[in-house]
Amino acid sequence: MNYKLMLRTLGRTLQLEALCLLPPLVTALLYHEDPKPFVWTIVLVALLGTALSHLKAKPEFYSREGYAVVGLIWLTLSLFGALPFFFSGYFPSYIDSFFEVVSGFTTTGCSILTAVEGLPRGILFWRSFSSWIGGMGVLIFTLAFLPKVGGRTQVLVQAEATGPVSSKLVPKTSLSSRILYTIYIAFTGAETLALCLAGMPFYDALLTSFATACTGGFSVRNASIAAYGLPACEIIVTVFMLLCSVNFAVYFLLLTRRLKQALQSDELRFFLCAVLGAVALIFWNLLPAYEAAGHTMRDTWFQVASVVSTSGFSTADFAQWPVLSQLVLIGLMFLGGCAGSTAGGIKCSRILLMLRCAGRSLSRLSHPRATKVVKLDGKAVDEDTLNTVFVFFCLFFLLLGGGCLLVCLDGFDLTTSFTAALTCLSNVGPGLGAVGPMENFAAFSPLSKVVLSLAMLIGRLEIFPMLILFSPATWRRH
Amino acid sequence: MNYKLMLRTLGRTLQLEALCLLPPLVTALLYHEDPKPFVWTIVLVALLGTALSHLKAKPEFYSREGYAVVGLIWLTLSLFGALPFFFSGYFPSYIDSFFEVVSGFTTTGCSILTAVEGLPRGILFWRSFSSWIGGMGVLIFTLAFLPKVGGRTQVLVQAEATGPVSSKLVPKTSLSSRILYTIYIAFTGAETLALCLAGMPFYDALLTSFATACTGGFSVRNASIAAYGLPACEIIVTVFMLLCSVNFAVYFLLLTRRLKQALQSDELRFFLCAVLGAVALIFWNLLPAYEAAGHTMRDTWFQVASVVSTSGFSTADFAQWPVLSQLVLIGLMFLGGCAGSTAGGIKCSRILLMLRCAGRSLSRLSHPRATKVVKLDGKAVDEDTLNTVFVFFCLFFLLLGGGCLLVCLDGFDLTTSFTAALTCLSNVGPGLGAVGPMENFAAFSPLSKVVLSLAMLIGRLEIFPMLILFSPATWRRH
Repeated sequence: MNYKLMLRTLGRTLQLEALCLLPPLVTALLYHEDPKPFVWTIVLVALLGTALSHLKAKPEFYSREGYAVVGLIWLTLSLFGALPFFFSGYFPSYIDSFFEVVSGFTTTGCSILTAVEGLPRGILFWRSFSSWIGGMGVLIFTLAFLPKVGGRTQVLVQAEATGPVSSKLVPKTSLSSRILYTIYIAFTGAETLALCLAGMPFYDALLTSFATACTGGFSVRNASIAAYGLPACEIIVTVFMLLCSVNFAVYFLLLTRRLKQALQSDELRFFLCAVLGAVALIFWNLLPAYEAAGHTMRDTWFQVASVVSTSGFSTADFAQWPVLSQLVLIGLMFLGGCAGSTAGGIKCSRILLMLRCAGRSLSRLSHPRATKVVKLDGKAVDEDTLNTVFVFFCLFFLLLGGGCLLVCLDGFDLTTSFTAALTCLSNVGPGLGAVGPMENFAAFSPLSKVVLSLAMLIGRLEIFPMLILFSPATWRRH
Repeated sequence: MNYKLMLRTLGRTLQLEALCLLPPLVTALLYHEDPKPFVWTIVLVALLGTALSHLKAKPEFYSREGYAVVGLIWLTLSLFGALPFFFSGYFPSYIDSFFEVVSGFTTTGCSILTAVEGLPRGILFWRSFSSWIGGMGVLIFTLAFLPKVGGRTQVLVQAEATGPVSSKLVPKTSLSSRILYTIYIAFTGAETLALCLAGMPFYDALLTSFATACTGGFSVRNASIAAYGLPACEIIVTVFMLLCSVNFAVYFLLLTRRLKQALQSDELRFFLCAVLGAVALIFWNLLPAYEAAGHTMRDTWFQVASVVSTSGFSTADFAQWPVLSQLVLIGLMFLGGCAGSTAGGIKCSRILLMLRCAGRSLSRLSHPRATKVVKLDGKAVDEDTLNTVFVFFCLFFLLLGGGCLLVCLDGFDLTTSFTAALTCLSNVGPGLGAVGPMENFAAFSPLSKVVLSLAMLIGRLEIFPMLILFSPATWRRH
């Protein structure tokens, strides 16, 4: 293991974290709030980061080290990122602060706070901003703005990227990263502007846009987006949640005027079909309970977009919806958005590949001698990738089961324990039962909070980096 | 498609069904009950079966036809097997009768009956006997006792057998079938004897043994095994449930004095670990609620054995147990017993193979260039088999989700809808909530009963035969 390079990379990302803590510090100063929680954290993180980034190391990263270091970085950033919350005194304990910042970085958006409206604006800024940083990936961020990490950085980006096949937009990693961040910033800016025009205050609009672009779902109001009572804002947020669950490579194709290629994405079509199907089912199921079809339609679209994009905003309490609608939403929690987006979950392309494999297996039973390849976007997918997709799927269920078992020790009912584990692993945010959209995670025991925090990290990094980080085989001498 | 051979095979199994209806007829006559429901069914089934089995056909079966015909046979046997129930007048409708006999043949053991003690003994005999026939497989039965099906019968046995890899005990299919049935009959006889010695009446002991050997779980008492109040009987049933969830090939190895080879089965070890782990967890979880540790131990072992073997007998209402215990039982419902046993579920060997694949994937991330094969019992498993295992797993979850969605239209809560679909697909029997061990399936709508019946058939035949039967591509001309 190239420990020095691992620590050096960690150092660079810690430096970045110190930089990212500046905007919340400025916000705190602007609103005449106590800046100390940020100042202390920035000093600590900057010193440690600078010390580590001065380590001299051979610029060689192997696959295993890449995965392990990505797991380590996310864990470390969260451990330090929790400090402003903890120092502020508004969070009951360090574990609660850790849970909240992990929920931010992983863009899960579930909270241990029973009410957010009384919190200082700087703290709320850091809460939403942390999810914005995590959305596109902290390593992509580091490579885009603080290069000189050294080593084969593609390994790192691969370990952090979402989806079964990671493809670069352009050959150079740092340029790819910068293009992605440009699109990301453009979305955030456009949404902020749109929300302001629709009547939301600037501060709320900015923080809501942070939480939409990263499909995180942290709101600065207790009642989430419903608090504003502005249908236009609900529609804007719905649109941007869906936009940000699509592979960002599609937007790059659009920007470079390859419209046809962009629209031919199998995953995009699958995603749209899933969304439309879910909307149709839930709309049909909800209609009798609502007075106006327009309101039903708006609530349905919003909640479907919120869950499938794994954001977790809400304008209606879907924990009170009929069982069929709840089941459809649970299905969407598993599904998640597209690969290469900021959404969580299993991802559409994985489900699509598995369905195509299933079709192939069935046709193989009929024609045992025929050899068929599974294709995505017209290109053959190799068997190793398919195997990894399946392994991911199995591990997802295994970890979900394990998480459930540990969480249910708290004595909540089955639905609560199951959806709490699922919503964290899929980075959605709200679940059903006692963790529904109008509830929060405050009542869980410290053990459950740690388990759920790990589930969020495992889900965000798509399992393998965290498993490799915690596998003893990784740390044995080779 | 070789339609004639398919119909001829169907004819042979219908003849067998007519024969299997004789013991319940005799029982009805012995107890001076109305024999007409059986007489009419026997005449109908025997006439149709004999007519079909006289068809002349080329003795060639391809894989696709083998799977499709196995699906067709199980569906047809159930459609006719429901007639005695329907004619008896004790079942509210034909759909209820169909549900009950499918629950029998597939060894699921869930019932639409609110009370069984008032039913005629002949009817109850058919109910338990149907599950005994289904347990080891109707095609193996046909090949063992009514050969001359013609064609490559191995294809049929393969389509009906459980588990990822089907292996023959001896090269000749009909001899293999006879050996399996001998072991099966020996278990049934031994248990009947043991239960009689422990104080159970002969009729009850015989029917309980039928339902144990096939891991079905139909009881002739409303309160299942708890009704007898005999701890010895509970222990006997526990032991036989576990024995029958083990691959029967292990017993063949023991009979042919290959003890060492028998004990080296990876799947057997995994199964035992899972059972011991579940018992330990539930015992620890339940202990505070019980007065005596011995009673806790007996109830824990019984319920774990009942669920993991997918029998579904009960001596305690686990729907009232703490959430952790319920979750462990749900895990066991997914798992099921070993391949080549009479148990349902995903099967231990599949889970084991998937875990080993996951291990391989993780080590591949560390050492991308190493090639590793996945082994079972020391033998390499080829990639096509692994792929089919994964596809099975994905289809299982997909069908579970689909079943859930349809069942939840009845308006039951999430836990009930989910466990109803799961318990049917895994052929367990009882679920949680409104389908707990002390409840029944009477309250579901006809649509749900049909969906759950199909789920039981899909689960028993391990998905592919039913999918191929209902896939339009199968029936297109090639």
